[in-house]
Amino acid sequence: MLTFYFGQGTCALATLIALEEAGLAYEPRKLSLKDSEQRSPEYLKINPKGRVPALVTDRGVLTEGVAILAYIAQIAPQAKLAPVDDPFEFARMQAFNSYIASTVHVNHAHSRRGSRWADDPAAIAAMAAKVPQTMAESFQMIEDKMLEGPWVMGGQYSVADPYLFTMASWLPGDGVDMARFPKVSAHHARMLERPAVRAALAADQA
Amino acid sequence: MLTFYFGQGTCALATLIALEEAGLAYEPRKLSLKDSEQRSPEYLKINPKGRVPALVTDRGVLTEGVAILAYIAQIAPQAKLAPVDDPFEFARMQAFNSYIASTVHVNHAHSRRGSRWADDPAAIAAMAAKVPQTMAESFQMIEDKMLEGPWVMGGQYSVADPYLFTMASWLPGDGVDMARFPKVSAHHARMLERPAVRAALAADQA
Repeated sequence: MLTFYFGQGTCALATLIALEEAGLAYEPRKLSLKDSEQRSPEYLKINPKGRVPALVTDRGVLTEGVAILAYIAQIAPQAKLAPVDDPFEFARMQAFNSYIASTVHVNHAHSRRGSRWADDPAAIAAMAAKVPQTMAESFQMIEDKMLEGPWVMGGQYSVADPYLFTMASWLPGDGVDMARFPKVSAHHARMLERPAVRAALAADQA
Repeated sequence: MLTFYFGQGTCALATLIALEEAGLAYEPRKLSLKDSEQRSPEYLKINPKGRVPALVTDRGVLTEGVAILAYIAQIAPQAKLAPVDDPFEFARMQAFNSYIASTVHVNHAHSRRGSRWADDPAAIAAMAAKVPQTMAESFQMIEDKMLEGPWVMGGQYSVADPYLFTMASWLPGDGVDMARFPKVSAHHARMLERPAVRAALAADQA
């Protein structure tokens, strides 16, 4: 049995979608980030980093979206959520997801979590001011060089798709018009038609 | 045949070590970051992101350390550089590497690459000022909760080890005394005894 810890409006939405796509049985546990439940003593025993997502399995806890997404694809091969038998294609997918985690998500985090990297309020404001530019640059790279279409990896849907979908959903809040990126916009609309995406969004917003 | 693009003193050192550990034939191509060769038109055709590392294979180019490290382990199974047949253990390793890429490396980058996230010189200085704290916090987490010993994953060496080694080597430059972290320090000394690490360091500094 899997237990999945997430928080509303976070990058954990990508994993929530992947769990739905995989058809895996799991118990969702939504933490209230407003009440800092991700830093409660109980949750820190599960994930000492105090972040979401975390996936509790029979063998232990997994953290970090990039790792959990690939894990879900590997334990549910019938759902075909990753090219698990082709190391090169698997690495291409992991490279996309790693770019999302270590560049795109990090750019976004400077809008609301600048205090991670500086204490001066003026510096935190200066970081937030640059987020529309850095997010637009990241998505221009995705639009021009990475998103093959119709899905991230081309013809085959994978766990890279919910990760891109989740980041793209943050663009309006970061002051970037998604319409500047036609392929990303079409991908986003295509994702919204999937029953797994609708189920995950309902659970996220419940 | 593999061609490996790297830059001296960068996170690409981890991949260089992994290539040496795997015993794979590869052609090393060192870019001069001082001369911004990673942003030359020639290199941008290889990696449009203008970053290192990049691994050119017969099937195409791979980028992002997290993805390339796992790829090397997968195509050289005899070197036993990852638990490739155990999705849970593989995900644990990927979670470690993803933490390095999206948290530890990002913390470090605020010391020298603050202009990625803000334009105001005072803000960039404020970011650099916090790096000793964020790097120390990351390494305290690694010391207390992540590094099992003797290797990252416990008894079995993996591509997580060169990644940790590379980040730890940046601690003195970030104003953090590695001796504060006994397990990390012992890991670092243990790594320096490996012939592959010595060969990679020689290539990096050549």
